Amino acid sequence: MTKIINKPSDTVSQVLNGVAFIHQDRLERVGKTGIIKRKGFTHGKVGLVSGGGSGHEPAHFGFVGKGMLDVSVSGPIFTPPSASEIVEAICLADQGRGVLLIIKNFEADVTVFLEAERQATADGIHVKHVIVNDDCSIEEGSYRKRRRGVAGTIFVHKILGAAADEGMSLEDLEQLGNKVILSMNTLGVALASGKELGSEQANFELETRSISFGIGIHGESGYRTEPFVSSEHLANELMNKLLLYYPVKEEASVALMINGLGTTTLMEQYVFGNDVRRLLELENVPVSYTKLGNFMTSMDMGGISLTFLVLEEMKWLEYLQATTDAFAW
Amino acid sequence: MTKIINKPSDTVSQVLNGVAFIHQDRLERVGKTGIIKRKGFTHGKVGLVSGGGSGHEPAHFGFVGKGMLDVSVSGPIFTPPSASEIVEAICLADQGRGVLLIIKNFEADVTVFLEAERQATADGIHVKHVIVNDDCSIEEGSYRKRRRGVAGTIFVHKILGAAADEGMSLEDLEQLGNKVILSMNTLGVALASGKELGSEQANFELETRSISFGIGIHGESGYRTEPFVSSEHLANELMNKLLLYYPVKEEASVALMINGLGTTTLMEQYVFGNDVRRLLELENVPVSYTKLGNFMTSMDMGGISLTFLVLEEMKWLEYLQATTDAFAW
Repeated sequence: MTKIINKPSDTVSQVLNGVAFIHQDRLERVGKTGIIKRKGFTHGKVGLVSGGGSGHEPAHFGFVGKGMLDVSVSGPIFTPPSASEIVEAICLADQGRGVLLIIKNFEADVTVFLEAERQATADGIHVKHVIVNDDCSIEEGSYRKRRRGVAGTIFVHKILGAAADEGMSLEDLEQLGNKVILSMNTLGVALASGKELGSEQANFELETRSISFGIGIHGESGYRTEPFVSSEHLANELMNKLLLYYPVKEEASVALMINGLGTTTLMEQYVFGNDVRRLLELENVPVSYTKLGNFMTSMDMGGISLTFLVLEEMKWLEYLQATTDAFAW
Repeated sequence: MTKIINKPSDTVSQVLNGVAFIHQDRLERVGKTGIIKRKGFTHGKVGLVSGGGSGHEPAHFGFVGKGMLDVSVSGPIFTPPSASEIVEAICLADQGRGVLLIIKNFEADVTVFLEAERQATADGIHVKHVIVNDDCSIEEGSYRKRRRGVAGTIFVHKILGAAADEGMSLEDLEQLGNKVILSMNTLGVALASGKELGSEQANFELETRSISFGIGIHGESGYRTEPFVSSEHLANELMNKLLLYYPVKEEASVALMINGLGTTTLMEQYVFGNDVRRLLELENVPVSYTKLGNFMTSMDMGGISLTFLVLEEMKWLEYLQATTDAFAW
């Protein structure tokens, strides 16, 4: 499909200018960088920074706001920003109590964010990080290390953002983040590949009416490809796999996120949500928080992901429910 | 593209069940009807009801909430609900001060909503209506009568919703609604047709890399089809046409809405938003409110619409900025 762009190589910069225009009441772009920052910081709190390659809109700039991130950094499409821009973002986010980086677990992202952490630390800023690895599609081997960071990252933004707003220290935020990450799993499914900007080149191959389970947000291959049957069949596959990872304690309720990967309509997302509801009722899994929409996309990929976060503490639910002015929450 | 559905004919009902599940903190579905209502009405205010065919999600249920609509009614895809369901919605929305219907200007919608108004009035409820006709793509003849109601409807939901919350009377809401509608114009462009649910049948014909200006939200044909050039070219065409309708007074600022019609990504919407910004600056048009995202879609149509509302009174801006818990605003 034709895309509404101008020169493909200018797209990310034009997107960021568009964001600064549309959300001028609360956000601004810093010069010609990939940095979007809040107008009017809350002083005296730990600064929160996240980012990564572009192509996942509204992540991450849509989650910059009071009660979530202070600064986001966007790189080129599917390519992390430079360490120097991340250092600049850290300096902007520091309000005297240090800065926490929320990093998605992709090798290129981790490398550049940790390099920036080293540089900012050398400059005297107190920096820590958490690495989100909620994608449970990779089964064998030392999977925790290879699990990717996907839609669950947004739950981490929200919970840590609300906790930081309450005045939590950098060390406690790091600990809370790691606890949340360990309690969270996401599984995605693709129905159609996205296309490169300015070309008809698909990001990956997928036959018409086939679906690919476990696909990554950059088109990394999934664990199984099969013909599409129905939304219910799809919900069943994702749920069963997520429940395997969760020997849910009777008292522990779940926060769930249904995330559209790009061109999947809200109508489809709600149909899928209804199938998830029925299966959760059958399994007697209590749900205390639900979120549905496009939060972490992959360009114009067709598909959906399902995230389960077991709420180990009821305080996490309060953090999820706390108000924020981040426009995409 | 494969769609995440089950039996196509059950889709709307499953969507509404999904909505009631995901937004159970604030919304509920009434029985097996197409009605979504707020939990916890604000008593003593005028009730606001809107609705129409499905396929435009998140319209209209996404705008049910404190400060916007009280009740929405969804019909089958691209088909209005029955008069009897609208009567039921009116009864539910009535909190003693009457009910205002916000109707999109399509013949089938107007017929059935006015029939419901007659029936509810006969039952003793005080009912009035406004008919939104913001689509300015139809140029010749008695166009006001034939202009369709599209994305600008959401601005009407918001402004009247905030005014109703402040205690405005039914008569004054009707008058305010008509004033807002007269000050508002929308123009859309399609890049790709949506497909019928459960088939590969396109809703209308459009050559690859062609665009259709003035397309309707049900695929009604536009005023011109031409090859796609660039986002800037597209912004230029829509802006020039919208500005023709608006001999903007120097003091009157504009509220604008950029609305994705379905599968157009946020990335594209912001690129387009940036082009609109540059043209507005060139034309010295002051903008005091901006909104971007998918508000009034047309299934999986690719495309975008641009709405200009001239803010005749600064109070309208306050109404746009007022808080609401409608999830899609």
